[in-house]
Amino acid sequence: MSHKDYSAFYEKQRKLIESKIEKAFDGLSPASLYAPASYIANGGGKRLRSFLVQISAQAVGAKINRVYNSAVAVELFHNFTLVHDDIMDNADKRRGLPTLHVKYDLSTAVLAGDSLIALAYKYLLKDCRGEDIDVVKDFTSAMIEVCEGQSLDKDLETAKKFSVEDYLEMIRKKTAALLQASCEIGAKLGGGAKKEVRALSNYALNLGMAFQLQDDLLDLIGDEKHFGKKVGGDLLEGKKTYLFIRAYEKAKGNNKKELKRFIENKGAKEDEIDLYREIFTELGAIDDARNLIDEYSRKAIRSLKNIREEKRDVFIWLVEKLIKRQN
Amino acid sequence: MSHKDYSAFYEKQRKLIESKIEKAFDGLSPASLYAPASYIANGGGKRLRSFLVQISAQAVGAKINRVYNSAVAVELFHNFTLVHDDIMDNADKRRGLPTLHVKYDLSTAVLAGDSLIALAYKYLLKDCRGEDIDVVKDFTSAMIEVCEGQSLDKDLETAKKFSVEDYLEMIRKKTAALLQASCEIGAKLGGGAKKEVRALSNYALNLGMAFQLQDDLLDLIGDEKHFGKKVGGDLLEGKKTYLFIRAYEKAKGNNKKELKRFIENKGAKEDEIDLYREIFTELGAIDDARNLIDEYSRKAIRSLKNIREEKRDVFIWLVEKLIKRQN
Repeated sequence: MSHKDYSAFYEKQRKLIESKIEKAFDGLSPASLYAPASYIANGGGKRLRSFLVQISAQAVGAKINRVYNSAVAVELFHNFTLVHDDIMDNADKRRGLPTLHVKYDLSTAVLAGDSLIALAYKYLLKDCRGEDIDVVKDFTSAMIEVCEGQSLDKDLETAKKFSVEDYLEMIRKKTAALLQASCEIGAKLGGGAKKEVRALSNYALNLGMAFQLQDDLLDLIGDEKHFGKKVGGDLLEGKKTYLFIRAYEKAKGNNKKELKRFIENKGAKEDEIDLYREIFTELGAIDDARNLIDEYSRKAIRSLKNIREEKRDVFIWLVEKLIKRQN
Repeated sequence: MSHKDYSAFYEKQRKLIESKIEKAFDGLSPASLYAPASYIANGGGKRLRSFLVQISAQAVGAKINRVYNSAVAVELFHNFTLVHDDIMDNADKRRGLPTLHVKYDLSTAVLAGDSLIALAYKYLLKDCRGEDIDVVKDFTSAMIEVCEGQSLDKDLETAKKFSVEDYLEMIRKKTAALLQASCEIGAKLGGGAKKEVRALSNYALNLGMAFQLQDDLLDLIGDEKHFGKKVGGDLLEGKKTYLFIRAYEKAKGNNKKELKRFIENKGAKEDEIDLYREIFTELGAIDDARNLIDEYSRKAIRSLKNIREEKRDVFIWLVEKLIKRQN
């Protein structure tokens, strides 16, 4: 397939999963629970995780319809993390729309998030026969890592000592773990050999790292219209992203003072975003991020060597698509 | 066994499960996540749900140690519901101690609750081989019902129209569903026959209904020291319990006016608790609650007829223990 064909394929699968997610809420009651849960779950998004489940099943020779329910499951689960993270981050907007706790209220958002976890397990289990119970364990391990990653992320916000390693461990758990689980679930349900499962898991790990670093970069240098979130939002929230931590490691003199001020003030003000962007650029943190993204991207592609050659292209295309993305 | 022996047996199992829950957090990090999760999970409680798992396995001829992990699982899960419910109820105290979001903060409580769900699945899965995958489905169905029940509970708070039936459906999902799942999990993992699983599931359903009605009653007429929560708390929070709804159905004249005022004011003030208690008593709502509790208790015991006779006594003892409880 050409790159254009992969785009069409992704788009087709994305729409299919969206319709399946919509159907997942059909006939459920009470509306007080499922209207808000459906609001977030049907609120768009890349549907990257479901796509990983789908192409991983295909990569090991299975048909995509073997894993439709688990593809829905990882998306429902991902949306749970968004709802609860938005509460913790006090975020007002998500994908250009009001976040759940803003549109409804805190209690509704907490509970809608909880119900998305339960629905995610329900859908995952629809694809699982007894011999697939390992897949449920993988999913659960990912959930544990995602919670740990979110906690590490909160820790970083108030941490006085921090390193690039802390940051990378945090995003591995918070972001990459679910991408890994998505590939593992697809590959295992598809009947993949151990070395295939491992290959796709490593691919997703490295893709996840590149993807999250790219997300940090887009937060600062992205186009607000495409990004759907406020540019510089991480700075306003006082998040210690890779860019900040890397700059802090390298900074001296006045730059260091400014970065220390960021920590003391627990974030930047709106009119300081340009200042910090300049400091990050001057210290090479933005270039370093780009290089690291490239490195993880290349590792992701190298991980595919145990996947049959004719099955690799869509994974390679996906790396390129995500790394060039504007949102 | 005599009743005294059952008390000792329960107490022994309770302590064993407590030590297993304590161990479940050993070596877990980050502390920012697991110290709060452990604070609530190790904060005492009846350990009723784990006991149901244990005695259900025994009732079908299995050894208790077959289900220790799933016994831990239902307790961890129960504690997740407490943490998130306390957020939604704005509750300050739980078992006489500060609630999690008061001791720590909102974000920590949301995330600690989430992690308890993940740990619950992790422990449940430790007891499950491939052929036990149905048990994971039961657990997931219970989680869905618990979320729905909590949402119905919130709905009731603002509802202008409500019936005893609405209330009973709400507590079936919010409280009884997890007790049912506990018995089903114990019986299924223990290798019980279908009719045994169904018997124990029905037992737990009716026990759960009696238990929750008793909880409502204790909230109003219990002893604060034993109850560990503020007496009349449901009234202060504006909860429409069985007592309120039943009294509302029966009330006329001045009593009806007072009950309507409760709805308009979204609850009672501290100095109105005695007034409402008197209205409930006068209208016979308290007697009705006692009768309903008796009815469910008898149904619970009758459900046991497909359980071998020598295995029934502990279940009967448990009904009596819970219905006579002060906390």
